[in-house]
Amino acid sequence: MISRQLARFLVASRWEDVPAAARHEARRSLLNVFGTALGGSADQASRRSAATLVPFSGPAEATVIGRPERVDCLTASFLNALAGNVFDFDDTHPETIIHPSAPVAPALFALAERRPMTGAALLHAFVLGVEVECRLGNAVSPFHYKRGWHITSTCGVFGAAAAAGRAIGLDEERMLWALGNASAQSSGLVETLGTMAKSVGVGQSARGGLLAAFLAENGVEGPELPIEGPRGFLRVMGHEADLARVADGLGQDWEMPKNNCKPYPCGVVLNSVIDACLELRAGGQVPVDAIRAITVLGHPLLRERADRPAVTSGREAQVSAQHAVAVALLDGAAGVVEFSDARVAAPDVLALRDRVAVREAPGIPVEGARVEVLLASGETVVQVVEAARGSAARPLSDAELEAKFRTLAAYGCPGFDPDPLIAALWAIEDAPDAAAIIRLAAHG
Amino acid sequence: MISRQLARFLVASRWEDVPAAARHEARRSLLNVFGTALGGSADQASRRSAATLVPFSGPAEATVIGRPERVDCLTASFLNALAGNVFDFDDTHPETIIHPSAPVAPALFALAERRPMTGAALLHAFVLGVEVECRLGNAVSPFHYKRGWHITSTCGVFGAAAAAGRAIGLDEERMLWALGNASAQSSGLVETLGTMAKSVGVGQSARGGLLAAFLAENGVEGPELPIEGPRGFLRVMGHEADLARVADGLGQDWEMPKNNCKPYPCGVVLNSVIDACLELRAGGQVPVDAIRAITVLGHPLLRERADRPAVTSGREAQVSAQHAVAVALLDGAAGVVEFSDARVAAPDVLALRDRVAVREAPGIPVEGARVEVLLASGETVVQVVEAARGSAARPLSDAELEAKFRTLAAYGCPGFDPDPLIAALWAIEDAPDAAAIIRLAAHG
Repeated sequence: MISRQLARFLVASRWEDVPAAARHEARRSLLNVFGTALGGSADQASRRSAATLVPFSGPAEATVIGRPERVDCLTASFLNALAGNVFDFDDTHPETIIHPSAPVAPALFALAERRPMTGAALLHAFVLGVEVECRLGNAVSPFHYKRGWHITSTCGVFGAAAAAGRAIGLDEERMLWALGNASAQSSGLVETLGTMAKSVGVGQSARGGLLAAFLAENGVEGPELPIEGPRGFLRVMGHEADLARVADGLGQDWEMPKNNCKPYPCGVVLNSVIDACLELRAGGQVPVDAIRAITVLGHPLLRERADRPAVTSGREAQVSAQHAVAVALLDGAAGVVEFSDARVAAPDVLALRDRVAVREAPGIPVEGARVEVLLASGETVVQVVEAARGSAARPLSDAELEAKFRTLAAYGCPGFDPDPLIAALWAIEDAPDAAAIIRLAAHG
Repeated sequence: MISRQLARFLVASRWEDVPAAARHEARRSLLNVFGTALGGSADQASRRSAATLVPFSGPAEATVIGRPERVDCLTASFLNALAGNVFDFDDTHPETIIHPSAPVAPALFALAERRPMTGAALLHAFVLGVEVECRLGNAVSPFHYKRGWHITSTCGVFGAAAAAGRAIGLDEERMLWALGNASAQSSGLVETLGTMAKSVGVGQSARGGLLAAFLAENGVEGPELPIEGPRGFLRVMGHEADLARVADGLGQDWEMPKNNCKPYPCGVVLNSVIDACLELRAGGQVPVDAIRAITVLGHPLLRERADRPAVTSGREAQVSAQHAVAVALLDGAAGVVEFSDARVAAPDVLALRDRVAVREAPGIPVEGARVEVLLASGETVVQVVEAARGSAARPLSDAELEAKFRTLAAYGCPGFDPDPLIAALWAIEDAPDAAAIIRLAAHG
């Protein structure tokens, strides 16, 4: 009765039972995803999707982050989830590589503009949605992503449904239906990564989750066992899924505090590679003109997800170790500018990335990397990173997160004043009206 | 390059190359799905979904079949696909058990109300959408459904995207993106069957497909190999999928003429079982009071999909051999009334269905069944059906389809005049404005 256990937990959870560490990481995650959405709102995938969806929008009730339009809350959840995740610069749940906030937070803030709720109620529902999303991810990992499921989308729709269901006060039965209505919409393929179509899946996960909750509220019934049934999520989209991971320790062991925020706008497996290259460059030992070859060694996941030598767009470059190495060594930076289409096409980047090879090396943890630079002189310079910035061992500080937010806001929304939104997000627990917070994210 | 082959075919296909048999079956399928949608519009899943979605609707541009509201075309595609399929009374592609029309036709008619097109253009796009949908289904069958995918939804989103993409005139590149944007939304679990959540998946397949085409038109780019790529649809959601089935013989061998329309509103595997029971009843040899036990023997799929002794709703009863046998023998009919919640709860049905067992029997084809009735006297009466009504060997006639349409319209929409819509659908090839046809399906 895993589905029902989840539903019962979601309905019964009390805010005072959520530990302080989970609350704080929740606030950090929200700050982070608002930042990535402000930055991502300028991306072509965001603009083109907004151009597509706004003409079909219903009541002008909800904010589109980084844009002036107001749209119905289902449409807002789609566009804000898309913008939050488009750069893959949003938060990461390390065990599953889910980006937990992008599907869940936009569904909740959009809902808050239709159904008033306090900031504390929103934050609570957010923690609960992330909990469901990441626990489902734990149960199907690592098979699920490896098989080709874009786990942020496939699990995100459940997280959004759970969070929205909690926020609108569904009872246990209706919460179960909300999970069932989410199960009917769980989708997202890794093949779409590196293209705008990825964002269609992510946007749909938020919208679909919010819709699942609304449908359940109106009596659209689902199955008894959407998660664990013989043709339910875990068995169809998992393989020997670890069912115990879904509900064991619910309310005791929380996933939210495990969440990490990323220092660079690219696949999380590249963080340590970029750290190593930035350190090499800062050390001054590897002048670019003197480099003959670069070997990046890492965990098998690094090669599996990021060995892409010939990328042609900023989006593809987000999962290219070759590109990441080149810009880190050339520019001494790896931000949204360095992962732009323009930089991907630059001759100096093309020339350097062609000298980069990616190899698996036993014993290197997934948070680590080893970069070996062979110089024209025959000398080899080695840099080893044990744990990347932004990993559990080296989390970004609150101040670093604020700085990241400001950079992203300035990138995506020139002229936007980030201070009121930053302050409001830190103070969300005391906000009488959560909708007032997202209204600060409109722009233009 | 299967995805690109599909895209090229969709863009290049000429109406004059579509054989007459495909055109005629397309008209029949449309008549059938409009009938099932008129009937299904009264179902609680339809009403509750409409109550949920209408408040979020944008421009009042498109018809909801069987209802008075006008909604934006994305919302209309969702609600009309749901209504068309809710009883599982819509058409069936026998090799895959896909219901081809429900995701595709609603996307196209909704589109036609926003972007005027002729009836011939719509019918052409419909044939092409069904082609893509069923060919993908062929490639992943039988693994895909068996694993737990609701194939109508998972393949339907591609069919809707292909059809809509053709109808709005996407070029080859954008058509490929439309397929990619569809791939990001392919979803639907068998676990939801027998509950309203099934319909959430089906509605989303139509809406998602239409949205995929609109997004592609606006430049939302997808991957090069959404269908056959290493993490694309066939490999993630299939298992040793038969890639050749997708594009071999495109434009020569058509799936549309293989489509069947069902005589009864339930799982297609039950058709022959009901035929047998109706014949037994008509023969007068099996008075209900004299029945001690009934054994239904059939293909393994019959037991797999329809051995459900203890159902509690009309929707669940659609996949219950026990219920189907009981109403056929008691009522001498198996229509929407006999699969209603009321009939499922009736004491005479409950008493008789408890005497029904379902067994696999080697050598019985999937279109056939053998029903053995053991009487209190000790005598056993046997009825064998080789091919069910509605199967390829015994298709419903055009007149039978019209009669089915009238019954469904009267059931779901009392007072609705079916004649203008029936006439318009038969004459669709000559219609200057396809939207005028669906406007005839509004009611109330």
